[in-house]
Amino acid sequence: MNQNLEYKRHTLAHLLAAAVKDQYPHAKLTLGPAIDTGFYYDIDFSDGVAPGEDDLKGIQKGMKKLINKWTEFTHEEVSAEKAREVFTDNQFKLELIAEIEKKGEPITLYTCGGFTDLCRGGHCENPKAELAMDAFKLNKISGAYWRGDEKNPMLTRIYGLAFATKDELVAYEEQLRQAKERDHRKIGKELDLFTFSELVGPGLPLFTPNGTMMRDLIVEKIMTIQAKYGYSKVTIPHITKSDLYKISGHWEKFGDELFKVKGKSDAEFVMKPMNCPHHTQIFDSRPRSYKELPIRYAETTMVYRDEQAGELIGLGRVRSITQDDGHVFCTLDQIDQEVENIVLVIKEFYQSLNMYEEGKFWVSLSVSDPNNPERYLGDKDNWKQAEAMLENVAKKLELPYKRIEGEAAFYGPKLDFMFYDAIGRERQLATAQLDFVMPERFGLTYTDNEGNKQQPVMIHRAIAGSLERFMAIMIEHFAGNFPLWLAPKQIAIIPVAETHNQYATAIHNMLIAAGFRSEIDTTNESMGKKIRAAKSMRLPYFIVIGDTEVANKTITLESRDTGESVTITDDDLLQKLTAEMNVVKSGD
Amino acid sequence: MNQNLEYKRHTLAHLLAAAVKDQYPHAKLTLGPAIDTGFYYDIDFSDGVAPGEDDLKGIQKGMKKLINKWTEFTHEEVSAEKAREVFTDNQFKLELIAEIEKKGEPITLYTCGGFTDLCRGGHCENPKAELAMDAFKLNKISGAYWRGDEKNPMLTRIYGLAFATKDELVAYEEQLRQAKERDHRKIGKELDLFTFSELVGPGLPLFTPNGTMMRDLIVEKIMTIQAKYGYSKVTIPHITKSDLYKISGHWEKFGDELFKVKGKSDAEFVMKPMNCPHHTQIFDSRPRSYKELPIRYAETTMVYRDEQAGELIGLGRVRSITQDDGHVFCTLDQIDQEVENIVLVIKEFYQSLNMYEEGKFWVSLSVSDPNNPERYLGDKDNWKQAEAMLENVAKKLELPYKRIEGEAAFYGPKLDFMFYDAIGRERQLATAQLDFVMPERFGLTYTDNEGNKQQPVMIHRAIAGSLERFMAIMIEHFAGNFPLWLAPKQIAIIPVAETHNQYATAIHNMLIAAGFRSEIDTTNESMGKKIRAAKSMRLPYFIVIGDTEVANKTITLESRDTGESVTITDDDLLQKLTAEMNVVKSGD
Repeated sequence: MNQNLEYKRHTLAHLLAAAVKDQYPHAKLTLGPAIDTGFYYDIDFSDGVAPGEDDLKGIQKGMKKLINKWTEFTHEEVSAEKAREVFTDNQFKLELIAEIEKKGEPITLYTCGGFTDLCRGGHCENPKAELAMDAFKLNKISGAYWRGDEKNPMLTRIYGLAFATKDELVAYEEQLRQAKERDHRKIGKELDLFTFSELVGPGLPLFTPNGTMMRDLIVEKIMTIQAKYGYSKVTIPHITKSDLYKISGHWEKFGDELFKVKGKSDAEFVMKPMNCPHHTQIFDSRPRSYKELPIRYAETTMVYRDEQAGELIGLGRVRSITQDDGHVFCTLDQIDQEVENIVLVIKEFYQSLNMYEEGKFWVSLSVSDPNNPERYLGDKDNWKQAEAMLENVAKKLELPYKRIEGEAAFYGPKLDFMFYDAIGRERQLATAQLDFVMPERFGLTYTDNEGNKQQPVMIHRAIAGSLERFMAIMIEHFAGNFPLWLAPKQIAIIPVAETHNQYATAIHNMLIAAGFRSEIDTTNESMGKKIRAAKSMRLPYFIVIGDTEVANKTITLESRDTGESVTITDDDLLQKLTAEMNVVKSGD
Repeated sequence: MNQNLEYKRHTLAHLLAAAVKDQYPHAKLTLGPAIDTGFYYDIDFSDGVAPGEDDLKGIQKGMKKLINKWTEFTHEEVSAEKAREVFTDNQFKLELIAEIEKKGEPITLYTCGGFTDLCRGGHCENPKAELAMDAFKLNKISGAYWRGDEKNPMLTRIYGLAFATKDELVAYEEQLRQAKERDHRKIGKELDLFTFSELVGPGLPLFTPNGTMMRDLIVEKIMTIQAKYGYSKVTIPHITKSDLYKISGHWEKFGDELFKVKGKSDAEFVMKPMNCPHHTQIFDSRPRSYKELPIRYAETTMVYRDEQAGELIGLGRVRSITQDDGHVFCTLDQIDQEVENIVLVIKEFYQSLNMYEEGKFWVSLSVSDPNNPERYLGDKDNWKQAEAMLENVAKKLELPYKRIEGEAAFYGPKLDFMFYDAIGRERQLATAQLDFVMPERFGLTYTDNEGNKQQPVMIHRAIAGSLERFMAIMIEHFAGNFPLWLAPKQIAIIPVAETHNQYATAIHNMLIAAGFRSEIDTTNESMGKKIRAAKSMRLPYFIVIGDTEVANKTITLESRDTGESVTITDDDLLQKLTAEMNVVKSGD
């Protein structure tokens, strides 16, 4: 967020605190920062009554009244002793003062409209003039432990949304409303895509037939697109001795996010949080020659990370994470061709979702920070060459990229693809990452054309990323209205009456034989009920078969997206659907 | 083994002991039973010299000499005191005597040819007349702890092979020799199908591109065959809270074979050793109506069991076990149709491997033991009906079945398919098992056509069983010479010289486009070397392209199996290969 907006949000936190103190004199203020969408203030109401959601309007009214006197911020640096006098009854502020004193930093009090708070600064100079009082809104109350530690007292956190203008606030509220409507947990249940079981545990989704079909369609799409680039599937177990990660560095990096596995034997196993170390062992299973390179492994497989139970949200964050993972082992000279191929796969895949379009995505060319060269491992010349190669690929393929220094991984530079979803949220999805470190740690080599041992470069690539997160994003992006290729079920066939079942079944069988995912509803329910049932499942097409269709041997096809109907022959139907399956809209 | 052969083998163990005592008077005998392929005797030589493999011939000679006096076994029941006198210096026999005494069982001594041993009986009446002295052979010496406990002294175990006739012995030795030659660990390495890494750990295979292709081909074959029976794929995580298994009963059943998983949170997770409990949770994720049944889930997924490190043999026994698992939830009335469908899938699958042929397999109809009804859970009438249904299916499909009482699982009766491999070893592979217990434990229900809650029956089914074990068996059965559909690479194209590369590449591309797994070798190696390389990879077909082929636009196709070559057009080639891919030999 820009500094100006941050100052406004921080100022509003002060204003909130002042209004609360007016209405709840027993309130003890603690901390109140600006955040991504506004601000909050954590307040201790334990000496009296605490406000509820219903009281937010009143507090907001108080803020709007107070603003008239808020025309200038003043501040003074005070001694710790003086500060302690001001906040004598507030153990939270006293704790903060002691900390600042210990660090030997200046203690500053900021005052506006007669309200004084302990603060480091960063406000509007003239809040009354600068703040748009219709561009913020108190929106939520929740509990929060003092300093985030559950051993501390529980405080009341009052949240406010705040933007530069009223329009931005309205737009954000609309995004929130849409996000709620599109929530993948809600739509996932409606479309019967996945479920959770208390007996299995949180963060461990079970995918139903519809959800598994969707997973398979995503993987199949990626595999089909990348087939021309020579990837081979490999298969690894989900556990390993910890030795593998002590060498790779994941033991240290993942720390307590690693699931430890213990059997009856003495060996300690670990669930894999990544696949690359295992894949190095397949590369290393026999001597390799330069003639074999690049070697490209692909595998869609689950990794396991012990995310905090409180952070698990539907498929958005899970403990069993299915990666559509790929690793290329190649020479330094082969990097640009391999990265280009990966980007072409990303392009074709996201085109099939209409997401690879101007303004709908950007690419972070994440390179090293020239001011902190010590943060990066590997030969400096190799880094330079590799970064130049990535930039060349970005230019050659006309990617809308920004070179972002300091965003490289410690093991190599990368290209990260950021897509905007239907309601404007930015989502990091595909990635191609160079890695100079892992081949060295595992001592990987190949024999070059002069018979010398050389170290290959590794490229990590993911197209969809985690399948769970990707599905969550796609469900919300499309609000469950998936494009034809991604829809678990594609066509609903609804005979009007029993007499139409025979012809309807013939059409159904024709579609199945042609590889389409058709469903037929021959139950005795009413037409209206059948159609509502089919529409609630958001199938891309509905075919209603009645007397006219049977008599004329035609099909009336209704589109979910346009609501329009066409009456066509069976040949035309197959042709139309096949064309839609194969269409790739251009993103250039 | 039949009793007659068992008696012979046991008698030979006595004879071995007698010959050893003659040649090694300090030897202390312990226990010497008959086993599946002969017999062994565990002997303590710690008071003097111990025999090595080189000494087996001498001991065997001794046995052949002694046999002349072994014309009759006599036995007497003696007091513990008397027995202790006889074996006064042998702490092992004294331990056995004390045990028999404690149990209050009779202590018997058996004598033949002047040699006496503590024994329960079960010998030839006249060893000299009954034993074929050319039908046994001492073949191996190994160490063995007294009573199998590593805290006890190490003894010397002398093994003998023994059969009813010399021909059977020779046949078995030939089988051993062939088994060694076909060892899947050796061939797996030659064909680059899988590897193990010390960093990953024992029993955790990593599948290379060739091996993964083979796995995928197996799964795809099964999925294609069963598509017509309405199975839906589902996807589950590899871990669960232990709660799931406490309800299913696996917590108790698998005991310390379960891998326990621990993260930073308090919850204890377990790696799944089975998939059925997870699948019940998908069934149970929403209310079910009789109209939806049967519901059929299929999933190819890894389960984890902590097998003893010492028992892990290549892919034959592993810790990460990929099951081609399937579960049907149905009504009691639907059992026979569902089991019939499962058997039809098994039939078609094993026909594609030429294993479903008369004399090459049999089916165990594993039913309850009428004398021990308490061993089985669930309603007795349901059991009766289910067993009759299984038998009806076996009859209807003309399965070569044997009804085996007492072989049912505690949760239901089953059909187990046993196949003989190329060298005559019996392998249990496919299975269909009824289960009345798990639906009850998880409280699964559906609503019947009168609106009442009913409990479904579960059917567990596996076609290939564990993919790892199945691959091990197939590698050994075919000695790596897989049928066309199962070969990871199918056709090797070898241009004689560089001038033939263009035409050879055109043929290669044509085969790839048609979906065949073709490989082309355009290196500068000699023809002989190229052909040897291709043959060592055991591809079903080789195509050599030289001047004649280029001039005539033909292809010379050599078969790995027959060694015969045919010269054909490209159209004929595609037709021939396509026909071979689709062929299913009849097993009827």
